[in-house]
Amino acid sequence: MDISEKKRKAVVLLSGGLDSATALYVAKNEGFEVHALSFEYGQKHDRELQAARQTAKKAGVKSHRIVSMDIGQWGGSSLTDRNMEIENGIPGREDIPLTYVPARNMVFLSVAASFAEAIEAYDIFIGVSEVDYSGYVDCRQKFLDAMENAINNGTVCAVEQGKKITIHAPFINMKKSEEITLGMKLGVDYSDTWSCYRGGEKPCGECDSCLLRAEAFIEAGVKDPGLPPR
Amino acid sequence: MDISEKKRKAVVLLSGGLDSATALYVAKNEGFEVHALSFEYGQKHDRELQAARQTAKKAGVKSHRIVSMDIGQWGGSSLTDRNMEIENGIPGREDIPLTYVPARNMVFLSVAASFAEAIEAYDIFIGVSEVDYSGYVDCRQKFLDAMENAINNGTVCAVEQGKKITIHAPFINMKKSEEITLGMKLGVDYSDTWSCYRGGEKPCGECDSCLLRAEAFIEAGVKDPGLPPR
Repeated sequence: MDISEKKRKAVVLLSGGLDSATALYVAKNEGFEVHALSFEYGQKHDRELQAARQTAKKAGVKSHRIVSMDIGQWGGSSLTDRNMEIENGIPGREDIPLTYVPARNMVFLSVAASFAEAIEAYDIFIGVSEVDYSGYVDCRQKFLDAMENAINNGTVCAVEQGKKITIHAPFINMKKSEEITLGMKLGVDYSDTWSCYRGGEKPCGECDSCLLRAEAFIEAGVKDPGLPPR
Repeated sequence: MDISEKKRKAVVLLSGGLDSATALYVAKNEGFEVHALSFEYGQKHDRELQAARQTAKKAGVKSHRIVSMDIGQWGGSSLTDRNMEIENGIPGREDIPLTYVPARNMVFLSVAASFAEAIEAYDIFIGVSEVDYSGYVDCRQKFLDAMENAINNGTVCAVEQGKKITIHAPFINMKKSEEITLGMKLGVDYSDTWSCYRGGEKPCGECDSCLLRAEAFIEAGVKDPGLPPR
Protein backbone atom coordinates (compact mmCIF):
# COMPACT_ATOMS: atom_id res chain seq x y z
CA MET A 1 0.00 0.00 0.00
CA ASP A 2 1.29 3.40 -0.97
CA ILE A 3 1.96 5.62 2.03
CA SER A 4 -0.13 8.37 0.45
CA GLU A 5 -3.15 6.08 0.46
CA LYS A 6 -2.82 5.40 4.15
CA LYS A 7 -5.73 6.77 6.13
CA ARG A 8 -5.02 9.73 8.35
CA LYS A 9 -5.64 9.05 12.00
CA ALA A 10 -7.97 11.11 14.17
CA VAL A 11 -8.46 11.05 17.92
CA VAL A 12 -12.13 11.45 18.84
CA LEU A 13 -13.20 12.40 22.36
CA LEU A 14 -16.07 10.02 23.02
CA SER A 15 -18.12 10.53 26.16
CA GLY A 16 -21.00 8.31 25.20
CA GLY A 17 -23.38 11.22 24.80
CA LEU A 18 -25.02 12.14 21.53
CA ASP A 19 -22.65 14.98 20.61
CA SER A 20 -19.48 12.94 20.75
CA ALA A 21 -21.12 9.98 19.00
CA THR A 22 -22.06 12.29 16.15
CA ALA A 23 -18.54 13.77 16.10
CA LEU A 24 -17.17 10.25 15.75
CA TYR A 25 -19.32 9.65 12.66
CA VAL A 26 -18.27 12.99 11.17
CA ALA A 27 -14.61 11.98 11.53
CA LYS A 28 -15.36 8.58 10.03
CA ASN A 29 -17.28 10.18 7.18
CA GLU A 30 -14.34 12.48 6.46
CA GLY A 31 -12.20 9.39 5.91
CA PHE A 32 -10.21 9.33 9.13
CA GLU A 33 -9.05 6.19 10.86
CA VAL A 34 -10.78 6.74 14.20
CA HIS A 35 -9.12 6.30 17.59
CA ALA A 36 -11.70 6.96 20.28
CA LEU A 37 -10.80 8.18 23.75
CA SER A 38 -13.12 8.05 26.75
CA PHE A 39 -12.55 9.07 30.34
CA GLU A 40 -13.40 7.64 33.69
CA TYR A 41 -12.94 10.74 35.79
CA GLY A 42 -15.03 10.04 38.83
CA GLN A 43 -18.49 10.23 37.32
CA LYS A 44 -21.13 8.90 39.68
CA HIS A 45 -22.36 6.38 37.13
CA ASP A 46 -20.86 4.50 34.21
CA ARG A 47 -23.81 4.46 31.85
CA GLU A 48 -22.01 6.95 29.64
CA LEU A 49 -18.99 4.68 29.35
CA GLN A 50 -21.17 1.71 28.46
CA ALA A 51 -22.69 3.90 25.77
CA ALA A 52 -19.24 4.95 24.56
CA ARG A 53 -18.15 1.32 24.24
CA GLN A 54 -21.27 0.42 22.33
CA THR A 55 -20.97 3.40 19.99
CA ALA A 56 -17.28 2.77 19.30
CA LYS A 57 -17.95 -0.88 18.58
CA LYS A 58 -20.82 -0.24 16.22
CA ALA A 59 -18.85 2.44 14.35
CA GLY A 60 -15.97 0.02 13.91
CA VAL A 61 -13.28 2.32 15.28
CA LYS A 62 -9.62 1.36 14.95
CA SER A 63 -9.11 1.66 18.71
CA HIS A 64 -11.03 2.73 21.81
CA ARG A 65 -9.27 3.55 25.04
CA ILE A 66 -10.69 4.48 28.39
CA VAL A 67 -8.40 6.67 30.45
CA SER A 68 -8.89 6.68 34.21
CA MET A 69 -8.07 9.85 36.07
CA ASP A 70 -9.46 10.92 39.37
CA ILE A 71 -9.99 14.62 38.75
CA GLY A 72 -13.33 14.06 40.44
CA GLN A 73 -11.50 13.75 43.79
CA TRP A 74 -11.68 17.48 44.50
CA GLY A 75 -15.38 17.72 43.78
CA GLY A 76 -16.63 21.06 42.58
CA SER A 77 -19.23 19.43 40.35
CA SER A 78 -22.45 17.61 41.06
CA LEU A 79 -21.41 15.02 38.45
CA THR A 80 -18.51 13.82 40.56
CA ASP A 81 -19.03 15.12 44.09
CA ARG A 82 -20.90 12.60 46.25
CA ASN A 83 -21.96 15.43 48.55
CA MET A 84 -23.75 17.32 45.80
CA GLU A 85 -27.05 16.37 44.31
CA ILE A 86 -27.66 16.48 40.56
CA GLU A 87 -30.35 19.09 40.19
CA ASN A 88 -33.25 19.12 37.77
CA GLY A 89 -32.85 21.20 34.64
CA ILE A 90 -33.94 24.82 34.70
CA PRO A 91 -34.94 25.93 31.17
CA GLY A 92 -33.49 29.30 30.21
CA ARG A 93 -31.02 29.45 33.09
CA GLU A 94 -28.04 31.69 32.56
CA ASP A 95 -25.76 30.91 35.49
CA ILE A 96 -23.18 28.13 35.52
CA PRO A 97 -24.87 24.87 36.47
CA LEU A 98 -23.56 22.70 39.31
CA THR A 99 -22.76 19.99 36.78
CA TYR A 100 -19.82 22.06 35.50
CA VAL A 101 -16.61 20.06 36.03
CA PRO A 102 -13.69 22.50 36.40
CA ALA A 103 -11.56 22.64 33.25
CA ARG A 104 -12.82 19.26 32.05
CA ASN A 105 -12.48 19.84 28.32
CA MET A 106 -9.00 21.26 28.84
CA VAL A 107 -7.92 18.10 30.63
CA PHE A 108 -9.55 15.90 27.98
CA LEU A 109 -7.98 17.83 25.10
CA SER A 110 -4.55 17.74 26.76
CA VAL A 111 -4.73 13.99 27.15
CA ALA A 112 -6.02 13.70 23.57
CA ALA A 113 -2.98 15.70 22.43
CA SER A 114 -0.65 13.38 24.34
CA PHE A 115 -2.32 10.35 22.77
CA ALA A 116 -2.36 11.97 19.33
CA GLU A 117 1.33 12.74 19.48
CA ALA A 118 2.11 9.17 20.57
CA ILE A 119 0.20 7.57 17.66
CA GLU A 120 1.07 10.28 15.12
CA ALA A 121 -2.44 11.63 14.70
CA TYR A 122 -2.77 15.33 13.91
CA ASP A 123 -6.52 15.73 14.19
CA ILE A 124 -8.67 15.76 17.32
CA PHE A 125 -12.47 15.80 17.23
CA ILE A 126 -14.64 17.14 20.03
CA GLY A 127 -18.42 17.39 19.93
CA VAL A 128 -18.96 20.69 21.71
CA SER A 129 -21.32 23.44 20.65
CA GLU A 130 -21.39 27.08 21.54
CA VAL A 131 -25.09 27.36 20.72
CA ASP A 132 -26.70 25.34 23.47
CA TYR A 133 -23.71 24.70 25.70
CA SER A 134 -25.30 24.89 29.14
CA GLY A 135 -23.00 27.71 30.26
CA TYR A 136 -19.81 25.66 30.04
CA VAL A 137 -17.10 28.14 29.06
CA ASP A 138 -14.84 25.38 27.78
CA CYS A 139 -17.23 24.70 24.91
CA ARG A 140 -16.51 27.99 23.15
CA GLN A 141 -14.50 28.46 19.95
CA LYS A 142 -12.33 31.00 21.73
CA PHE A 143 -11.24 28.38 24.21
CA LEU A 144 -10.64 25.78 21.49
CA ASP A 145 -8.44 28.25 19.59
CA ALA A 146 -6.43 28.95 22.73
CA MET A 147 -6.11 25.25 23.43
CA GLU A 148 -5.02 24.43 19.90
CA ASN A 149 -2.36 27.10 20.22
CA ALA A 150 -1.16 25.61 23.52
CA ILE A 151 -1.02 22.14 21.96
CA ASN A 152 0.99 23.44 19.04
CA ASN A 153 3.45 25.09 21.39
CA GLY A 154 3.74 22.13 23.72
CA THR A 155 4.20 19.08 21.53
CA VAL A 156 7.37 17.99 19.76
CA CYS A 157 5.50 17.06 16.58
CA ALA A 158 4.26 20.65 16.20
CA VAL A 159 7.27 22.58 17.50
CA GLU A 160 10.09 20.50 16.09
CA GLN A 161 8.59 18.68 13.13
CA GLY A 162 6.09 21.22 11.83
CA LYS A 163 3.21 18.78 12.18
CA LYS A 164 0.50 20.86 13.77
CA ILE A 165 -2.49 19.37 15.51
CA THR A 166 -5.97 20.61 14.57
CA ILE A 167 -8.94 20.58 16.92
CA HIS A 168 -12.15 19.94 14.98
CA ALA A 169 -15.41 20.99 16.59
CA PRO A 170 -17.85 20.35 13.75
CA PHE A 171 -20.91 21.42 15.75
CA ILE A 172 -19.50 24.55 17.34
CA ASN A 173 -22.11 26.69 15.54
CA MET A 174 -24.79 24.05 15.26
CA LYS A 175 -27.93 23.58 17.27
CA LYS A 176 -28.29 20.13 18.78
CA SER A 177 -31.29 19.47 16.52
CA GLU A 178 -29.19 20.16 13.41
CA GLU A 179 -26.55 17.86 14.80
CA ILE A 180 -29.11 15.09 15.15
CA THR A 181 -30.31 15.62 11.57
CA LEU A 182 -26.71 15.29 10.39
CA GLY A 183 -26.05 12.30 12.63
CA MET A 184 -29.10 10.46 11.29
CA LYS A 185 -27.74 10.87 7.77
CA LEU A 186 -24.34 9.57 8.83
CA GLY A 187 -25.81 6.51 10.48
CA VAL A 188 -25.41 7.28 14.19
CA ASP A 189 -27.45 4.93 16.30
CA TYR A 190 -28.71 7.28 18.99
CA SER A 191 -30.23 4.41 20.93
CA ASP A 192 -26.65 3.57 21.94
CA THR A 193 -25.97 7.02 23.38
CA TRP A 194 -26.60 8.20 26.92
CA SER A 195 -27.17 11.84 27.87
CA CYS A 196 -28.74 11.71 31.33
CA TYR A 197 -26.59 13.13 34.11
CA ARG A 198 -28.07 10.61 36.49
CA GLY A 199 -27.36 6.91 36.14
CA GLY A 200 -30.14 4.39 36.33
CA GLU A 201 -32.12 2.02 34.22
CA LYS A 202 -33.50 4.74 31.98
CA PRO A 203 -32.93 8.48 31.53
CA CYS A 204 -34.50 10.57 34.30
CA GLY A 205 -36.06 13.03 31.85
CA GLU A 206 -35.63 15.88 34.30
CA CYS A 207 -31.97 16.87 34.42
CA ASP A 208 -30.58 19.63 32.23
CA SER A 209 -29.07 17.17 29.80
CA CYS A 210 -32.28 15.15 29.39
CA LEU A 211 -34.26 18.37 28.79
CA LEU A 212 -31.83 19.60 26.12
CA ARG A 213 -31.85 16.22 24.41
CA ALA A 214 -35.63 15.94 24.40
CA GLU A 215 -36.02 19.45 23.00
CA ALA A 216 -33.46 18.75 20.28
CA PHE A 217 -35.14 15.55 19.10
CA ILE A 218 -38.50 17.31 18.98
CA GLU A 219 -36.99 20.16 16.97
CA ALA A 220 -35.32 17.70 14.60
CA GLY A 221 -38.66 15.98 14.14
CA VAL A 222 -37.24 12.61 15.12
CA LYS A 223 -38.33 10.24 17.84
CA ASP A 224 -35.50 9.72 20.37
CA PRO A 225 -34.55 6.07 20.02
CA GLY A 226 -32.76 6.29 23.38
CA LEU A 227 -36.03 6.61 25.26
CA PRO A 228 -37.79 3.52 26.56
CA PRO A 229 -41.06 2.65 24.83
CA ARG A 230 -44.10 3.93 26.72
CA MET B 1 -9.59 36.59 61.07
CA ASP B 2 -10.08 39.29 58.49
CA ILE B 3 -10.64 37.92 55.00
CA SER B 4 -7.89 40.18 53.68
CA GLU B 5 -5.40 38.47 55.97
CA LYS B 6 -6.26 35.07 54.61
CA LYS B 7 -3.36 33.46 52.78
CA ARG B 8 -3.70 33.13 49.05
CA LYS B 9 -3.66 29.54 47.85
CA ALA B 10 -1.23 28.20 45.27
CA VAL B 11 -1.22 24.86 43.49
CA VAL B 12 2.32 23.51 43.12
CA LEU B 13 3.14 20.75 40.67
CA LEU B 14 5.36 18.46 42.70
CA SER B 15 7.09 15.60 40.90
CA GLY B 16 9.54 14.77 43.66
CA GLY B 17 12.50 16.02 41.65
CA LEU B 18 14.66 18.92 42.70
CA ASP B 19 13.06 21.53 40.45
CA SER B 20 9.54 21.08 41.76
CA ALA B 21 10.74 20.84 45.37
CA THR B 22 12.45 24.18 44.93
CA ALA B 23 9.35 25.66 43.28
CA LEU B 24 7.34 24.57 46.31
CA TYR B 25 9.66 26.47 48.63
CA VAL B 26 9.50 29.54 46.39
CA ALA B 27 5.70 29.51 46.65
CA LYS B 28 5.90 29.02 50.40
CA ASN B 29 8.45 31.81 50.68
CA GLU B 30 6.14 34.13 48.76
CA GLY B 31 3.51 33.57 51.42
CA PHE B 32 1.17 31.21 49.61
CA GLU B 33 -0.80 28.47 51.29
CA VAL B 34 0.60 25.52 49.33
CA HIS B 35 -1.51 22.74 47.80
CA ALA B 36 0.81 20.23 46.18
CA LEU B 37 -0.24 18.03 43.28
CA SER B 38 1.65 14.93 42.15
CA PHE B 39 0.88 12.47 39.40
CA GLU B 40 1.01 8.75 39.03
CA TYR B 41 0.94 8.51 35.25
CA GLY B 42 2.47 5.15 34.58
CA GLN B 43 6.07 5.83 35.59
CA LYS B 44 8.09 2.64 35.83
CA HIS B 45 9.06 3.37 39.43
CA ASP B 46 7.56 5.29 42.34
CA ARG B 47 10.72 6.68 43.90
CA GLU B 48 9.72 10.13 42.66
CA LEU B 49 6.35 9.90 44.40
CA GLN B 50 7.97 8.81 47.66
CA ALA B 51 10.20 11.84 47.32
CA ALA B 52 7.21 14.07 46.63
CA ARG B 53 5.45 12.84 49.78
CA GLN B 54 8.53 13.41 51.88
CA THR B 55 9.12 16.89 50.46
CA ALA B 56 5.49 17.93 50.92
CA LYS B 57 5.47 16.67 54.49
CA LYS B 58 8.68 18.41 55.47
CA ALA B 59 7.54 21.67 53.89
CA GLY B 60 4.29 21.50 55.85
CA VAL B 61 1.99 21.98 52.87
CA LYS B 62 -1.72 22.54 53.42
CA SER B 63 -2.61 19.57 51.22
CA HIS B 64 -0.90 17.06 48.96
CA ARG B 65 -2.81 15.04 46.42
CA ILE B 66 -1.63 12.32 44.09
CA VAL B 67 -3.65 12.07 40.91
CA SER B 68 -3.63 8.77 39.05
CA MET B 69 -4.01 8.86 35.31
CA ASP B 70 -2.83 6.25 32.90
CA ILE B 71 -1.49 8.43 30.11
CA GLY B 72 1.45 6.02 30.12
CA GLN B 73 -0.79 3.39 28.49
CA TRP B 74 0.07 4.53 24.96
CA GLY B 75 3.79 4.52 25.57
CA GLY B 76 5.82 6.86 23.45
CA SER B 77 8.29 7.46 26.29
CA SER B 78 10.97 5.32 27.87
CA LEU B 79 9.75 6.55 31.27
CA THR B 80 6.43 4.76 30.88
CA ASP B 81 6.79 2.25 28.04
CA ARG B 82 7.82 -1.17 29.34
CA ASN B 83 9.17 -2.00 25.89
CA MET B 84 11.62 0.89 25.87
CA GLU B 85 14.82 1.02 27.83
CA ILE B 86 15.89 4.17 29.68
CA GLU B 87 19.07 5.19 27.95
CA ASN B 88 22.19 6.66 29.49
CA GLY B 89 22.58 10.43 29.24
CA ILE B 90 24.39 11.88 26.26
CA PRO B 91 26.01 15.20 27.21
CA GLY B 92 25.42 17.93 24.63
CA ARG B 93 22.71 16.05 22.77
CA GLU B 94 20.30 18.18 20.76
CA ASP B 95 17.58 15.77 19.67
CA ILE B 96 14.50 14.94 21.73
CA PRO B 97 15.36 12.22 24.24
CA LEU B 98 13.31 9.03 24.53
CA THR B 99 12.27 10.07 28.02
CA TYR B 100 9.99 12.76 26.55
CA VAL B 101 6.41 12.02 27.61
CA PRO B 102 4.02 13.44 25.00
CA ALA B 103 2.35 16.63 26.21
CA ARG B 104 3.02 15.81 29.85
CA ASN B 105 3.26 19.33 31.20
CA MET B 106 0.11 20.28 29.31
CA VAL B 107 -1.80 17.46 30.98
CA PHE B 108 -0.36 18.35 34.40
CA LEU B 109 -1.15 22.05 34.01
CA SER B 110 -4.69 21.28 32.84
CA VAL B 111 -5.33 19.14 35.87
CA ALA B 112 -3.72 21.79 38.07
CA ALA B 113 -6.13 24.33 36.58
CA SER B 114 -9.09 22.07 37.33
CA PHE B 115 -7.91 21.63 40.91
CA ALA B 116 -7.11 25.34 41.27
CA GLU B 117 -10.57 26.32 40.10
CA ALA B 118 -12.19 23.85 42.50
CA ILE B 119 -10.32 25.19 45.57
CA GLU B 120 -10.31 28.84 44.43
CA ALA B 121 -6.57 29.12 43.91
CA TYR B 122 -5.41 31.47 41.19
CA ASP B 123 -1.71 30.68 41.15
CA ILE B 124 0.01 27.57 39.79
CA PHE B 125 3.72 26.90 40.26
CA ILE B 126 5.77 24.70 37.95
CA GLY B 127 9.52 24.14 38.24
CA VAL B 128 10.51 24.08 34.58
CA SER B 129 13.49 25.81 33.03
CA GLU B 130 14.20 26.76 29.49
CA VAL B 131 17.94 26.83 30.10
CA ASP B 132 18.77 23.17 30.61
CA TYR B 133 15.49 21.58 29.66
CA SER B 134 16.66 18.41 27.94
CA GLY B 135 14.86 19.27 24.71
CA TYR B 136 11.38 19.14 26.20
CA VAL B 137 9.35 21.70 24.26
CA ASP B 138 6.74 21.95 27.01
CA CYS B 139 9.28 23.59 29.32
CA ARG B 140 9.45 26.81 27.31
CA GLN B 141 7.97 30.18 28.29
CA LYS B 142 6.18 30.33 24.96
CA PHE B 143 4.29 27.17 25.82
CA LEU B 144 3.49 28.38 29.34
CA ASP B 145 2.09 31.63 27.93
CA ALA B 146 -0.10 29.70 25.51
CA MET B 147 -1.26 27.39 28.28
CA GLU B 148 -2.06 30.25 30.65
CA ASN B 149 -4.13 31.78 27.89
CA ALA B 150 -5.98 28.50 27.35
CA ILE B 151 -6.66 28.21 31.08
CA ASN B 152 -8.00 31.73 31.21
CA ASN B 153 -10.33 31.02 28.32
CA GLY B 154 -11.50 27.67 29.64
CA THR B 155 -12.30 28.18 33.30
CA VAL B 156 -15.39 29.82 34.74
CA CYS B 157 -13.39 31.72 37.35
CA ALA B 158 -11.40 33.49 34.63
CA VAL B 159 -14.09 33.92 31.96
CA GLU B 160 -17.11 34.71 34.12
CA GLN B 161 -15.67 36.07 37.34
CA GLY B 162 -12.56 37.88 36.12
CA LYS B 163 -10.29 35.83 38.40
CA LYS B 164 -7.44 34.90 36.13
CA ILE B 165 -5.04 32.09 36.89
CA THR B 166 -1.29 32.79 36.72
CA ILE B 167 1.31 30.15 35.91
CA HIS B 168 4.53 30.85 37.81
CA ALA B 169 7.73 29.32 36.49
CA PRO B 170 10.31 30.94 38.76
CA PHE B 171 13.25 29.10 37.19
CA ILE B 172 12.34 29.53 33.54
CA ASN B 173 15.51 31.55 32.93
CA MET B 174 17.64 29.99 35.65
CA LYS B 175 20.34 27.40 35.41
CA LYS B 176 19.82 24.39 37.64
CA SER B 177 22.85 25.40 39.70
CA GLU B 178 21.31 28.82 40.43
CA GLU B 179 18.10 27.07 41.38
CA ILE B 180 20.02 24.93 43.87
CA THR B 181 21.70 27.98 45.37
CA LEU B 182 18.27 29.58 45.82
CA GLY B 183 16.77 26.38 47.19
CA MET B 184 19.50 26.02 49.79
CA LYS B 185 18.68 29.52 51.05
CA LEU B 186 14.99 28.68 51.22
CA GLY B 187 15.59 25.51 53.20
CA VAL B 188 14.92 22.80 50.61
CA ASP B 189 16.18 19.43 51.80
CA TYR B 190 17.56 18.00 48.57
CA SER B 191 18.22 14.66 50.23
CA ASP B 192 14.46 14.13 50.02
CA THR B 193 14.33 14.68 46.27
CA TRP B 194 14.77 12.09 43.54
CA SER B 195 15.94 12.90 40.00
CA CYS B 196 17.05 9.56 38.56
CA TYR B 197 14.93 8.30 35.66
CA ARG B 198 15.57 4.75 36.80
CA GLY B 199 14.14 3.46 40.05
CA GLY B 200 16.31 1.51 42.44
CA GLU B 201 18.01 1.77 45.79
CA LYS B 202 20.17 4.70 44.75
CA PRO B 203 20.42 6.99 41.71
CA CYS B 204 22.06 5.29 38.70
CA GLY B 205 24.37 8.24 38.04
CA GLU B 206 24.24 7.60 34.30
CA CYS B 207 20.86 8.71 32.96
CA ASP B 208 20.34 12.17 31.55
CA SER B 209 18.65 13.40 34.69
CA CYS B 210 21.42 12.12 37.01
CA LEU B 211 24.06 13.77 34.80
CA LEU B 212 22.26 17.13 34.80
CA ARG B 213 21.81 17.00 38.56
CA ALA B 214 25.42 16.10 39.26
CA GLU B 215 26.67 18.87 37.00
CA ALA B 216 24.37 21.40 38.67
CA PHE B 217 25.49 20.54 42.21
CA ILE B 218 29.15 20.78 41.17
CA GLU B 219 28.47 24.16 39.55
CA ALA B 220 26.64 25.35 42.66
CA GLY B 221 29.57 24.24 44.77
CA VAL B 222 27.40 22.11 47.00
CA LYS B 223 27.65 18.43 47.78
CA ASP B 224 24.51 16.61 46.59
CA PRO B 225 22.86 15.35 49.79
CA GLY B 226 20.76 12.96 47.69
CA LEU B 227 23.78 10.82 46.83
CA PRO B 228 24.70 7.88 49.01
CA PRO B 229 27.92 8.26 51.01
CA ARG B 230 30.90 6.65 49.31
